[in-house]
Amino acid sequence: MALPRALVALATALRRLPGIGPRQALRLGFFLFRNKPIAQAMALALKTLYEEVRLCPKCFRLISTGEQTCTICANRLRRKPTLAIVEEDIDADQLEKTGAFQGLYFILGGRFSPRGGALEQQGLRINELKARIMQEKDFLEEIVLATNPTADGDALTLYLLRELKPFGIKTTRLGRGLPLGGEIEHADEETLKGAIEHRT
Amino acid sequence: MALPRALVALATALRRLPGIGPRQALRLGFFLFRNKPIAQAMALALKTLYEEVRLCPKCFRLISTGEQTCTICANRLRRKPTLAIVEEDIDADQLEKTGAFQGLYFILGGRFSPRGGALEQQGLRINELKARIMQEKDFLEEIVLATNPTADGDALTLYLLRELKPFGIKTTRLGRGLPLGGEIEHADEETLKGAIEHRT
Repeated sequence: MALPRALVALATALRRLPGIGPRQALRLGFFLFRNKPIAQAMALALKTLYEEVRLCPKCFRLISTGEQTCTICANRLRRKPTLAIVEEDIDADQLEKTGAFQGLYFILGGRFSPRGGALEQQGLRINELKARIMQEKDFLEEIVLATNPTADGDALTLYLLRELKPFGIKTTRLGRGLPLGGEIEHADEETLKGAIEHRT
Repeated sequence: MALPRALVALATALRRLPGIGPRQALRLGFFLFRNKPIAQAMALALKTLYEEVRLCPKCFRLISTGEQTCTICANRLRRKPTLAIVEEDIDADQLEKTGAFQGLYFILGGRFSPRGGALEQQGLRINELKARIMQEKDFLEEIVLATNPTADGDALTLYLLRELKPFGIKTTRLGRGLPLGGEIEHADEETLKGAIEHRT
């Protein structure tokens, strides 16, 4: 049952998005054909994305083309001597929502994952991170390695600890343990193990 | 944490797609910024979608703008006197994959769902369906109501049975029962009940 070429092209592009399978991609294609205003809004947003969005030169968060740096890097009230290193933009977003962190950020980007038996960094901004720390090392009092509490995140943390050691700055990690409202009865083994080991 | 306007616009459009939540929409937005070739392929496909895709005037499947009717409607070998009425394009796709149906199709489109206490049809091509059956009623021997085996699908079937009764054409439905490879032990109650009631 041959589908129109433009629809197949759209489904093919959608299928390359993370978390979208081939069936959902096709469904979304049909949906976009039926809902022209959504398709048009999406086409326009994709068109302007690269014209209007760029990376903050200090922390690599996404900013509007008109801005010099991001609002956090530009905010003098935020110049606490703490730097949180996160994997992705969305992680910084989540930390911001807590209101509990008043320092600055650095987005590592890229990936750190197993490849050919060894863990390998692909596209992580390690050199940019070192350059930034070098520049601010007289000001920085603490680096928070805010990586994900996963095997890959832990491996990344070990890698960063080694790379950042020469700077001699105090380095911390996010706390591990039971999530708020999580019951011991339903906690998975590893989380509970972590909660015991990291008891305070 | 103010995000660039173009990124917010993209996430807003993505969030309107079925099955995409606000967090996934934002994630996809970040992903598309990082993966320019995918974003460009998607923008191009969206741009050409409405130029290159239209509806088959007979069955309302999606076809390329150059075609008169879809390949199935145009295929003289397929002119079996059976018409399968399906809710969506993708349903016809699935039936085609079985190879078990050699008749023609009609895509109802739209929705049939509860609204304000009553079931209501929104955008279903009921008039177009009646016009088509009227035109082919001397040729048609059977109408297959290939609706989904859900509460809404069953309500739609009852609605269609009433609407199509005046034509006096034999009307059938897809079989109900245990899926192939499904074990009785793991079958949900309603499926098993259906398999008993529709035993053959």
